[in-house]
Amino acid sequence: MRLSRAFIPTIKEIPSEAQIASHRLMLRAGLVRQTSAGIYAWLPLGLRVLRNIERIVREEQNAAGAQEVLMPTIQPAELWRESGRYDDYGKEMLRIVDRHEREMLYGPTNEEMITDIFRQSVKSYRDLPINLYHIQWKFRDEVRPRFGVMRGREFLMKDAYSFDVDHAGAVRSYRGMMLAYMRTFQRMGLKAIPMVADTGPIGGDLSHEFIVLAPTGESQVYYDASFEGVDYLTGGKSPNLEKFFADITSRYAATDEKHDPAKWADVPEASRREGRGIEVGHIFYFGTKYTKAMNAAVAGPDGKMFHPEMGSYGIGVSRLVGAAIEASHDDAGIIWPDAIAPFKAAILNLKNGDAACDALCESLYAALSGDALYDDRSDRAGVKFNDADLMGHPWQIIVGPRGAAAGKVELKRRATGERVEVSPEDALAKVRG
Amino acid sequence: MRLSRAFIPTIKEIPSEAQIASHRLMLRAGLVRQTSAGIYAWLPLGLRVLRNIERIVREEQNAAGAQEVLMPTIQPAELWRESGRYDDYGKEMLRIVDRHEREMLYGPTNEEMITDIFRQSVKSYRDLPINLYHIQWKFRDEVRPRFGVMRGREFLMKDAYSFDVDHAGAVRSYRGMMLAYMRTFQRMGLKAIPMVADTGPIGGDLSHEFIVLAPTGESQVYYDASFEGVDYLTGGKSPNLEKFFADITSRYAATDEKHDPAKWADVPEASRREGRGIEVGHIFYFGTKYTKAMNAAVAGPDGKMFHPEMGSYGIGVSRLVGAAIEASHDDAGIIWPDAIAPFKAAILNLKNGDAACDALCESLYAALSGDALYDDRSDRAGVKFNDADLMGHPWQIIVGPRGAAAGKVELKRRATGERVEVSPEDALAKVRG
Repeated sequence: MRLSRAFIPTIKEIPSEAQIASHRLMLRAGLVRQTSAGIYAWLPLGLRVLRNIERIVREEQNAAGAQEVLMPTIQPAELWRESGRYDDYGKEMLRIVDRHEREMLYGPTNEEMITDIFRQSVKSYRDLPINLYHIQWKFRDEVRPRFGVMRGREFLMKDAYSFDVDHAGAVRSYRGMMLAYMRTFQRMGLKAIPMVADTGPIGGDLSHEFIVLAPTGESQVYYDASFEGVDYLTGGKSPNLEKFFADITSRYAATDEKHDPAKWADVPEASRREGRGIEVGHIFYFGTKYTKAMNAAVAGPDGKMFHPEMGSYGIGVSRLVGAAIEASHDDAGIIWPDAIAPFKAAILNLKNGDAACDALCESLYAALSGDALYDDRSDRAGVKFNDADLMGHPWQIIVGPRGAAAGKVELKRRATGERVEVSPEDALAKVRG
Repeated sequence: MRLSRAFIPTIKEIPSEAQIASHRLMLRAGLVRQTSAGIYAWLPLGLRVLRNIERIVREEQNAAGAQEVLMPTIQPAELWRESGRYDDYGKEMLRIVDRHEREMLYGPTNEEMITDIFRQSVKSYRDLPINLYHIQWKFRDEVRPRFGVMRGREFLMKDAYSFDVDHAGAVRSYRGMMLAYMRTFQRMGLKAIPMVADTGPIGGDLSHEFIVLAPTGESQVYYDASFEGVDYLTGGKSPNLEKFFADITSRYAATDEKHDPAKWADVPEASRREGRGIEVGHIFYFGTKYTKAMNAAVAGPDGKMFHPEMGSYGIGVSRLVGAAIEASHDDAGIIWPDAIAPFKAAILNLKNGDAACDALCESLYAALSGDALYDDRSDRAGVKFNDADLMGHPWQIIVGPRGAAAGKVELKRRATGERVEVSPEDALAKVRG
């Protein structure tokens, strides 16, 4: 993308309504614009990050055996009356009356709807286990929306729902999703830790939330330092879920509300870590809560009908954009992890109109095609440096007239600030990783 | 995907509520399920088609220079009061009141919102032309939703919005989008014809709708047979838009409402075609209607502020799934055009458990990876044939014990019914195209 033609409206003034770094930086770098309180439009740069996160989430859900569907945003109230949750959600649920006076709502989550689809279609234990997910916009009418996309009203969520024949199967599904989540966050370049959690309005008796460590996080967290070194990507195609789960849950990790000073005292002092964190995912096992309430039953091997055991598994896709920025930024701007960066590199032409600079930039741009943002504007170098730092591309390829004449470019790594003079070929090789 | 594990709930009974072929077939083949009147959940098979259509739309929008954004579904009423359209939309607009008694609505289209984003960010004629699009769910509260996804209430639309410095620029943008649309539909394997249209509640004075020919279409259409042979994909990177537009608009094409018997009489009799069609796209030029009403102005070369000229351009992404089926099906089921088929091929194992059949099917499945649906169920051959025809994969690779022993498979082309015995390698080569 050529910056001179791209719709990336950066702003210099720090927006007064933005209280946290990610909100400020997303507005300043032109990633989003607010369209109503807590509701945002995603502009090209922000949308690219959102899509990268979505892609990683999707790949890991598919790899874990979940199947993608897409449920609508608008749901009928009657389904929520069946489960008994229509009143539980209170004012956070956006309630709607259509032209025929039917009560509808903008889905904040989809346990009821997926259970309805399941009971219409699945008739036998032979079709289990099954795990269905979608990535769809949700709405929660927060009383005080704030912190940008971190606590917006309309937000993008991945939610998966598993159906199993029995408790043992449901626990296996739960553990499989937990591993998929750890892989997902690791691939995004985020340090996430699972912590025992309350189940809230979803219900059930087993639940973990996933907390991304960030100095500006909303929650105080306590965890064992050994979490920082675990590699979740090495398990291969048939990971040992039992061992994984035992291993993960044997380490101490808790948010403020669940913190247990007695158990904390058992953690060796050198391994104790305190910090701040942001919730980016939440998983629940709740057994037959919805299948019983909504009478979703299938035939067992003996022909008798039974209610499958369920779990549900959420990831805050749009929230992750904010969380990633909270976890990785500095005074100059965003520092994107490579895997979710909108562009791998920015190409900075320091002297637009200089034949050698232009030619070298064009060839680099062509070589990186969709992966580079080419700053071909006629602005001065300082503006380009500042904008590239603000937008946070992992690499900057800086092309000036002296270097271009000598067949050299400067390659800057955003995360470290390190700058080296290299040949254009070496720069391309580095950027491509 | 293995059919034994896939969530593709086909049904044998013809659903009574479904009056048209695409609605019946989408329910029977397990593509969608209705969740409320006119609102559908997309199941794995249907979602794959929807994503293929989305991808082609996106690629052609990008190639035409439009930039992707993503606006939210929920909009503030005040924007629509600024344009004066809040009352025009009547009961088709889904109106919502949030917990703070603010009037909101579920967007049926986005002229107001994009104009608002534009006026916040674009300040100079130098940033024009610009064309922004998104692919997002919309809602129109149809009084009688019917025909499945063809006239649903919650539907997926691609809508683009162009901003130009003057009338000549806006006309260029309009023509560029028209060409992008013809390329889009051609790539999907659909015969679409642009026809002069009324502008309706969008407003403006130049408008075309795009009609896909289908014997079961909603509108009567009249057109010049020469439309059937045009190739829109050959224009290259810098097509002559003036010539393209003159060429296209010189041919006769009109829906019933716009049909002009006098002009029709000028079409040589041998070239006159009458048929039925389905609207799948609609484009509008409306000049400064919204930029004036909402005071979106930018500075010209002389420093004076002016209101840019706009157009908007819609494609019914979810509707296209139904339209493609209306245009291409038979008594046995769907016949997908290759480009949008959920899978390129079905692999039918006629004798599950036979070592040679299983091994050959597995190797074909591995070779086609994500592009094949493997019918590994223990059902009898007739069920597999029927389901493959119903689901409409362009190719069927049929593996029986006799053929497997001899290193042969049967390859069936769904569109023609032609079956040939070939080696597995030749079958793969054909399927891969």
